[in-house]
Amino acid sequence: MVKTYRKGYMAERELVHKLSKMGFMVIRAPHSGSMSIASPDVIATKSISGKTIAVAIECKAHVSAFSIRPEQMEELKQWEDKGGAHPFVAWKVPYKGWHFFHLSKVMENKGNIGKKFAEQHAFLLDDLEKNI
Amino acid sequence: MVKTYRKGYMAERELVHKLSKMGFMVIRAPHSGSMSIASPDVIATKSISGKTIAVAIECKAHVSAFSIRPEQMEELKQWEDKGGAHPFVAWKVPYKGWHFFHLSKVMENKGNIGKKFAEQHAFLLDDLEKNI
Repeated sequence: MVKTYRKGYMAERELVHKLSKMGFMVIRAPHSGSMSIASPDVIATKSISGKTIAVAIECKAHVSAFSIRPEQMEELKQWEDKGGAHPFVAWKVPYKGWHFFHLSKVMENKGNIGKKFAEQHAFLLDDLEKNI
Repeated sequence: MVKTYRKGYMAERELVHKLSKMGFMVIRAPHSGSMSIASPDVIATKSISGKTIAVAIECKAHVSAFSIRPEQMEELKQWEDKGGAHPFVAWKVPYKGWHFFHLSKVMENKGNIGKKFAEQHAFLLDDLEKNI
């Protein structure tokens, strides 16, 4: 468990730095579990042509297929509906970098994410701005 | 120090809940100190008439006058310039609730905040949306 937690933490940290280099201001959620308020792993904002863009990201660093829990999807949905943020799941695919999925696609697939789903619906981190 | 930290934490937590009740999605910064990326205490976003509003807040719970450190002002400025967020310092004035200051006013006063400055430049939490 500790190893898994650390891997997730390191991946999240890497994503934060990449987003920062892309000109986003980024904040990671504290993982104390003490707050009852919905928090994805990462919130980033950027001013693009005078418009404020917000992005809410749930990060995963699994080796193979995994699922997003209903409450995590619900959290992202709230950030979209109430917070005006673009909601994504970001999967660090081993040796292939960060793959992003829009929450709507993940919800359509009932939270299940795997290789085939990635081939059909993922875009890469570099294309984030094109997808918001 | 522990007591001061706890007071700050409790105040921050209270502000998070108040913003949440006002319809904002809110995230607190982790205070691990391990990340070199600029983080105010609280980032909140809200979709207002289809427009995404982001707010970056440095929270303080001092009893009397205090100063915002130059690097904290710089952090907030980055969230404004790069992140498109409205930057504020929020002071929980004992028995008088949350007083908000726009970063520009705080910078004009070289980071110094006290009773007189509050009388001239503060607005209350309830008026946040009017001031963004």
